[in-house]
Amino acid sequence: MKVTNLVGDRFKERPSEASVDSHALMLRGGYIKFVGSGLYSQLPPLQRITQKIERIIREEMNAVDGQEVLFPVVMPAALWQESGRYTSVGAELARFEDRSGAGLVLGMTHEEAAVSLVREFGQTYTRYPFMIYQIQTKFRDEPRPRAGLIRTREFTMKDGYSFHTSQEDMEAYYSRVHRAYENIYRRAGLPQVISVASDSGMMGGKVAHEFMLLTPIGEDSIAVCNCGYSANVEAAPAIFNNAPTAAAERELVDTPRIATIEDIRKRFKVGFEQTCKAVVYQERDTLKYIVVFLRGDIEANETKIRNHLKTDIFPAAIDENSPLFAGSIGPVNLPANVTALYDSSLKNLENLICGANVSEKHFTGVSLSRDVGGIEYGDFAKAQSGGICPKCGQLPLSIERGIEVGNIFQLGTKYSEAMNMRYSDESGKLQTPLMGCYGIGVGRLAASVCEVSRDDYGPIWPISIAPWEVELVCLRPDDAETHAVADAIYKDLQAAGLEVIYDDRAMSAGAVFAEADLLGSPVRLVISPKNLKADALELVTRDKSVKTTTTRENAVRDVAQLVVKLYTELNK
Amino acid sequence: MKVTNLVGDRFKERPSEASVDSHALMLRGGYIKFVGSGLYSQLPPLQRITQKIERIIREEMNAVDGQEVLFPVVMPAALWQESGRYTSVGAELARFEDRSGAGLVLGMTHEEAAVSLVREFGQTYTRYPFMIYQIQTKFRDEPRPRAGLIRTREFTMKDGYSFHTSQEDMEAYYSRVHRAYENIYRRAGLPQVISVASDSGMMGGKVAHEFMLLTPIGEDSIAVCNCGYSANVEAAPAIFNNAPTAAAERELVDTPRIATIEDIRKRFKVGFEQTCKAVVYQERDTLKYIVVFLRGDIEANETKIRNHLKTDIFPAAIDENSPLFAGSIGPVNLPANVTALYDSSLKNLENLICGANVSEKHFTGVSLSRDVGGIEYGDFAKAQSGGICPKCGQLPLSIERGIEVGNIFQLGTKYSEAMNMRYSDESGKLQTPLMGCYGIGVGRLAASVCEVSRDDYGPIWPISIAPWEVELVCLRPDDAETHAVADAIYKDLQAAGLEVIYDDRAMSAGAVFAEADLLGSPVRLVISPKNLKADALELVTRDKSVKTTTTRENAVRDVAQLVVKLYTELNK
Repeated sequence: MKVTNLVGDRFKERPSEASVDSHALMLRGGYIKFVGSGLYSQLPPLQRITQKIERIIREEMNAVDGQEVLFPVVMPAALWQESGRYTSVGAELARFEDRSGAGLVLGMTHEEAAVSLVREFGQTYTRYPFMIYQIQTKFRDEPRPRAGLIRTREFTMKDGYSFHTSQEDMEAYYSRVHRAYENIYRRAGLPQVISVASDSGMMGGKVAHEFMLLTPIGEDSIAVCNCGYSANVEAAPAIFNNAPTAAAERELVDTPRIATIEDIRKRFKVGFEQTCKAVVYQERDTLKYIVVFLRGDIEANETKIRNHLKTDIFPAAIDENSPLFAGSIGPVNLPANVTALYDSSLKNLENLICGANVSEKHFTGVSLSRDVGGIEYGDFAKAQSGGICPKCGQLPLSIERGIEVGNIFQLGTKYSEAMNMRYSDESGKLQTPLMGCYGIGVGRLAASVCEVSRDDYGPIWPISIAPWEVELVCLRPDDAETHAVADAIYKDLQAAGLEVIYDDRAMSAGAVFAEADLLGSPVRLVISPKNLKADALELVTRDKSVKTTTTRENAVRDVAQLVVKLYTELNK
Repeated sequence: MKVTNLVGDRFKERPSEASVDSHALMLRGGYIKFVGSGLYSQLPPLQRITQKIERIIREEMNAVDGQEVLFPVVMPAALWQESGRYTSVGAELARFEDRSGAGLVLGMTHEEAAVSLVREFGQTYTRYPFMIYQIQTKFRDEPRPRAGLIRTREFTMKDGYSFHTSQEDMEAYYSRVHRAYENIYRRAGLPQVISVASDSGMMGGKVAHEFMLLTPIGEDSIAVCNCGYSANVEAAPAIFNNAPTAAAERELVDTPRIATIEDIRKRFKVGFEQTCKAVVYQERDTLKYIVVFLRGDIEANETKIRNHLKTDIFPAAIDENSPLFAGSIGPVNLPANVTALYDSSLKNLENLICGANVSEKHFTGVSLSRDVGGIEYGDFAKAQSGGICPKCGQLPLSIERGIEVGNIFQLGTKYSEAMNMRYSDESGKLQTPLMGCYGIGVGRLAASVCEVSRDDYGPIWPISIAPWEVELVCLRPDDAETHAVADAIYKDLQAAGLEVIYDDRAMSAGAVFAEADLLGSPVRLVISPKNLKADALELVTRDKSVKTTTTRENAVRDVAQLVVKLYTELNK
């Protein structure tokens, strides 16, 4: 491909809408174009990248006996009603009606479609285990699309679904897919991706992992310890080891305009070990209030609370009609119809300042064991930076940011049960199969590579997913001999099976290299009248690790060897 | 792949919902599964077929300098408002709102997205010509999905868009794509596809072709002549050569319960040359009535009428409030606010029986030239079987049924003009580029091949798109030696780079062959204790053109040679 013909523009200015560097580079390099909120068109260079990523994914999924299928993007609402998700999933599920008024949805995941596809096939145990996957367009009506391809509303995703007759088999297969995912990231040039335990929440299963690329622009928070422990903060146990405090006498005090933990600390001049935070939720179905009490410096973890209650909740709106007084909510005299949960960050703290459930009044000297009693502490908190590692028990846990570039779940029987999928086992008895599901976003993976593999001038694509392996540059194409040699080498490189982007435009070297940097080909061969005269053609890698020269005669051989070397390094 | 592991069921019974044979075979062979009206999941064998078709399409599009891109399926309504299609397209365009209430559509074609993608890139003449294409999911809310993958609501389609600075360049490129399409059909095993002139209607362009596979189950009607002429009946000129009839005196007669042309012919004992049919439409915008008069045996062609009027119309509803009397509509005394169109099938007929525009009354002896006058005859009729060929002027045109398996359009400036795409030409003057667009449905192509390349037992896949090139059958796998030999040959065939589906299930030969027929692999190698003993393994083609034997030693070589031979035949 000649750059002259390549559809798309490359430019210098950082677009104002780009919040992260990969987003800016993908716009500047002619990889993507904005179509609407969270909607992008892919230009040829990105199309080449995503097709290579898809090929890697396909090979790894086929290697774990996956069979490729294709589910429709548009599905009948009735199918999602079978699993209950038509109502349980929120506004991120796009719902609409067809011309006859029948309800349709846009697939954001395909568990229902997968069960529906194999429900008859899987009626006897001899058919198990099996795994089906697709690489298909998804739509999820994200409230806040951001960072270019990192979080879009429409995206291409590989989603796989495995079916098993036993927990052991599901777990063994899950491990195989876990390794296949590691292969995918390594082969796509992201060996630094880590797998972290994640919350499978109401998905029904017990074990789940997210594959995380640690980067400051990530949306997820991951608790990481030097001992090797890592987990999404949603899933990481929050561990506290409070030194016991001595009890004091309880007193009711006026606290006008004292509402926050900081107000309390200033007014009473106390540390966090004397503070008690109240975070209020309501159950979605019943609107019943739930108050979670935590130490003042600790944040509530909505996912853990939801999992504990086994029902959906949302942050409560407290107004004059609520039974609670904002800023003065506490465990003593809490209205009877309010559920109280106590986080273990409060354990051993026997001298707390708590809201008195009366407007603008607090209690000091509250002892939960004395003044409330019968308390069962639970884990309702986010693991915090500097906290105790749940694996090695040591300080300090660090909290890092990450992009989720894949996830795998042991779903168990959640969908097969709900959708009445059964098989007869060896004795003819009807059983419910177990499922695993395995997702990976193609565009997000491409953007993630760009985010961590770049310099100030553009992406540094790994050889395996680069749009073109080699960029051939002809400087001063007005010089007939130079141009003729470059043209000949272009043909020879292609004949050698290399993917070449060829820039022979009559532009300044600076302008040509700026665009070459944006296209990010890992290997670059530059031919100019000057280096041709010296028979020392410039051969460099985009990451500057190789800067050498080659001769006219050896150019193709040396380029090919360098390409092979880069592939080899990737597979180390 | 072993059949034991292949996801999907193959069965004998023709499913009651299958209206055409390819639909039945695709259900019976485990290729597709119904998800909802016009929505199917693709099982692994079909997934393999469509990927091969996509590869052929990609190669041919790249060969005509196409650059692959990807547009989103979901697009903002605003983008379709730019071209005016948000309102001009009917209910087949799925429209919905996102969580914020913004209008979205599901792409059924991507002219708007294409223009939007290259509007900036194409600002200068030096960038032209160029072509971008995608292979992407589409949704079109068809009122009547039918025949399995022949007409679905969701489908995968290759759609390409070319941009040009002159009519000549557009036409020259159009011819290249036309040849590329011929290559695609030939390579996919459908050399019999013909290209027919089609109506580009309100698409704005003047030249368009549909690629048609002639088959009785087709939805389109194509006028074909021995001279080589072919056109969609929508687009074929209808030519008539009436012998002049002598005029007679006009008389008003009572015609109670006489409404149809057949009623008239029976009552008055006349031929069609004395009958005058009135077909009534209304303009969509104004509801104004339009009456088209044709000879009694001729059908009106709504497309031609719409093109002539340059406005959208629909078949009129005639009731007591209409200015017209159903069954008695005629050219004489037609209400002044009704538009009359005269089809050339009435030319030279001077003794007609026509409705009198009075309830239950007709005129006999109507002469249009005498009684109406100033008539301009036009072509508002469907070309009819047995009619005159517009190319050679001879009888008889035949009307055949066809499936449209692709289409190409010279769009001209319709979209570039509406969406304000401009480029500066060599003299710096702003110009509007011309466009071509090129579509081909992947699933429909697969189903079309199945429809015309099959026998009573299953599809006969062309080698180029067959899910597997070779089916290896091991009969009596309980015989250890037979099974071992078959296993070894399976490995050797794969090592030779062949795609093999291997059936070594302990089932009757009849059951195994029935399933093999449904999978339709073009080459079959059968190993049984009996033929192994004779060292005469059975080697046959699915279409029965080859029935031979090979030896244990030569099996792999002979299978490979047969596969190569089939590819060679396809490319003849």
